[in-house]
Amino acid sequence: MRLKAIVAGVGMTHFGKHMDTGFKALGAEAVTAALADAGMGQEDLEAAWVGNAAAGLVTGQECIRGQVILRSLGLGRIPVVNVENACASASTALNQAAAMVSAGMYDIVLALGVEKLYHPDKKKSFAAFSGAVDVEAMAAIMETLQKGAAQGGAKSASSGAGEKRSMFMDIYAAMARAHMAQYGTTAEQFAMVSAKNSFHGSMNPRAQFREAMTVEEVLAAPMIAEPLTRPMCSPIGDGAAAVVLVSEKKARELGIAKPVTVVSSVLMSGWDHGLEEEGSAEACARAAYEEAGIGPEDLSVVECHDASAPAEVAACESLGLCAKGEGGKLVEAGTTRLGGRIPVNTSGGLLRKGHPVGATGIAQIVELTEQIQGRSGKRQVEGATIGLAHNGGGNIGVDAAAMCVTILKG
Amino acid sequence: MRLKAIVAGVGMTHFGKHMDTGFKALGAEAVTAALADAGMGQEDLEAAWVGNAAAGLVTGQECIRGQVILRSLGLGRIPVVNVENACASASTALNQAAAMVSAGMYDIVLALGVEKLYHPDKKKSFAAFSGAVDVEAMAAIMETLQKGAAQGGAKSASSGAGEKRSMFMDIYAAMARAHMAQYGTTAEQFAMVSAKNSFHGSMNPRAQFREAMTVEEVLAAPMIAEPLTRPMCSPIGDGAAAVVLVSEKKARELGIAKPVTVVSSVLMSGWDHGLEEEGSAEACARAAYEEAGIGPEDLSVVECHDASAPAEVAACESLGLCAKGEGGKLVEAGTTRLGGRIPVNTSGGLLRKGHPVGATGIAQIVELTEQIQGRSGKRQVEGATIGLAHNGGGNIGVDAAAMCVTILKG
Repeated sequence: MRLKAIVAGVGMTHFGKHMDTGFKALGAEAVTAALADAGMGQEDLEAAWVGNAAAGLVTGQECIRGQVILRSLGLGRIPVVNVENACASASTALNQAAAMVSAGMYDIVLALGVEKLYHPDKKKSFAAFSGAVDVEAMAAIMETLQKGAAQGGAKSASSGAGEKRSMFMDIYAAMARAHMAQYGTTAEQFAMVSAKNSFHGSMNPRAQFREAMTVEEVLAAPMIAEPLTRPMCSPIGDGAAAVVLVSEKKARELGIAKPVTVVSSVLMSGWDHGLEEEGSAEACARAAYEEAGIGPEDLSVVECHDASAPAEVAACESLGLCAKGEGGKLVEAGTTRLGGRIPVNTSGGLLRKGHPVGATGIAQIVELTEQIQGRSGKRQVEGATIGLAHNGGGNIGVDAAAMCVTILKG
Repeated sequence: MRLKAIVAGVGMTHFGKHMDTGFKALGAEAVTAALADAGMGQEDLEAAWVGNAAAGLVTGQECIRGQVILRSLGLGRIPVVNVENACASASTALNQAAAMVSAGMYDIVLALGVEKLYHPDKKKSFAAFSGAVDVEAMAAIMETLQKGAAQGGAKSASSGAGEKRSMFMDIYAAMARAHMAQYGTTAEQFAMVSAKNSFHGSMNPRAQFREAMTVEEVLAAPMIAEPLTRPMCSPIGDGAAAVVLVSEKKARELGIAKPVTVVSSVLMSGWDHGLEEEGSAEACARAAYEEAGIGPEDLSVVECHDASAPAEVAACESLGLCAKGEGGKLVEAGTTRLGGRIPVNTSGGLLRKGHPVGATGIAQIVELTEQIQGRSGKRQVEGATIGLAHNGGGNIGVDAAAMCVTILKG
């Protein structure tokens, strides 16, 4: 899919605990911000793709999530497609919007990601994740992962999703133990990911956590699922992020000052493969680089899906920022820190900016657009021109159920 | 959106109560049937759009509904977009698939609609519909509708969703009373819709109800929400329907014998308007006719969204099959019965074929395709060449939240 959709405006809410702000209000705030950034009114929008993962299970709002948000702004008539792909819901919305604009179907469209996870009943928030796996096949998945860790002699941690954490942290913990056993990656290196992202997040006013943490503080924090301490796990959060995309023709008409173009967006589903075989992240990245006509060495800045610290280590490898098994050493060398060769998660990432599931993929696009346009303040990557977003969602076997890699070019 | 996507194959399950068949198995059965009809293997598919409305609330399977179905067939890698638009989820999937193929993004794609509503706990089945309205605004909607009925002097029935019916039947009952008060439509005319569709459904082996009912039997059935008796309300059901769509180029390569083309598919969101003002169904139909370059007089066969008998009456008016307020007389005259000028719901419609919410929009396409290809058996419309599907979903104010009108041409 060759793409050429231009970002006309971006907007997002603060990510965090918004007990007094509802699902509709969060979504509307991001849409309003993106329209203002684009210098447009809602009457300019021709279609909308809205990503959300958990409103059905958390708030009861299913089926027509986008319509209720847009109606609260007085917007009807236009086609609204509600899309869902777990944690990759927002990048799926962006992928579809970018494809339709590139294909000449529309000139001005909206992609929105929104999530309301905090609920007075915390069980509801955690239950929201239970639908993002094959509900009939979860036991088999955990068995495969435990076996991978045990073969390397790693200590097994308790499995089974508790009420106080998402079952995904059990999956990530098993993945981390397998990585340690096979490549000698250390808990300290995972902690370095969290410390780095906390440093980045400390400079992001929209981040859920602003406190900068040391490696020692990360390691000393309460254990969630060995070897993951709390700051190695992304938090529950509320938030929304939106992008207005326009066609090339419309971009010329508007005379956008610093156009940022979606040059590739590759969406794939995971498949059943061995732990050591190529998965959807590697395949998506390869296809996205090919479409964009670039390689990982051309990237200025990356936002990756660090739902846990080991997930960032694995993503850096999958995206070709380093060799397989070298992700721990990459963060230790400071390569992915602001000022390093290829800064990763300058927003603070899912770990510190926060992870309102269905909003995450577009929040990554907001960060990359602002970086490429030189408006990221203290966390600006000097001379950023090309950014990559990596957003995975759900679980199917040992792979993500949905994977999306998007490349933006200034 | 000018479309040109060719139907290569269609398939669906029997609609009804499938207590021993799960969500994945239902979806897989429809996909397998559509691929067999197209003479293709799953490896030919390049992308999939999967519509579902209620799996999250009924079965707990959220987020990655399409992936778990396709994985059960051994299919991964391809992009899967899970779409949701309440009862219009499947036509939304079709709309997106048809647009992408028409735009040249893919050559062979799948559109699937699937629903598993029956659950040992019936409350779960009915609860599934509660997410298809603006959950914060439901009271105001009912008040508006009751007012419309009361102004005409119609007797008010109890409002508020009970546990034994979907709240949508309260909305439809209020709509029916308003229609009776304003246009003199009678309960007998609503019963004629159900009797006609039961006659059609009696000839459809895939229909949930095969019993042909008389007008008297429909009227004598238990009252659900005045004036709606049980056969005037679509039932809860399980089922799935799938379509394989191909590009013009691919259709030529394949040498499809009786090609049926999606010539227009218009998706809109509802908006806030007065009860008497134009809504999304009229606007969608007008745009679809314009795109297809035809008028209602050119149609051979129509599948409309008869979630209740009065909904078919209203749909016939919105689609221009008769003048506003004349929908009751239209059915009474036999115009919409098999053998009449424009047969409506030859499949039995939602009332008799059944209404597994997220599958309905594509089941309509299955029926129309088979009609145009002359393979509808006893319920064949002689010489059918052009078909229209009308599929609405959810509720927003007095309009549907999502509305989709699709036109197929042989």
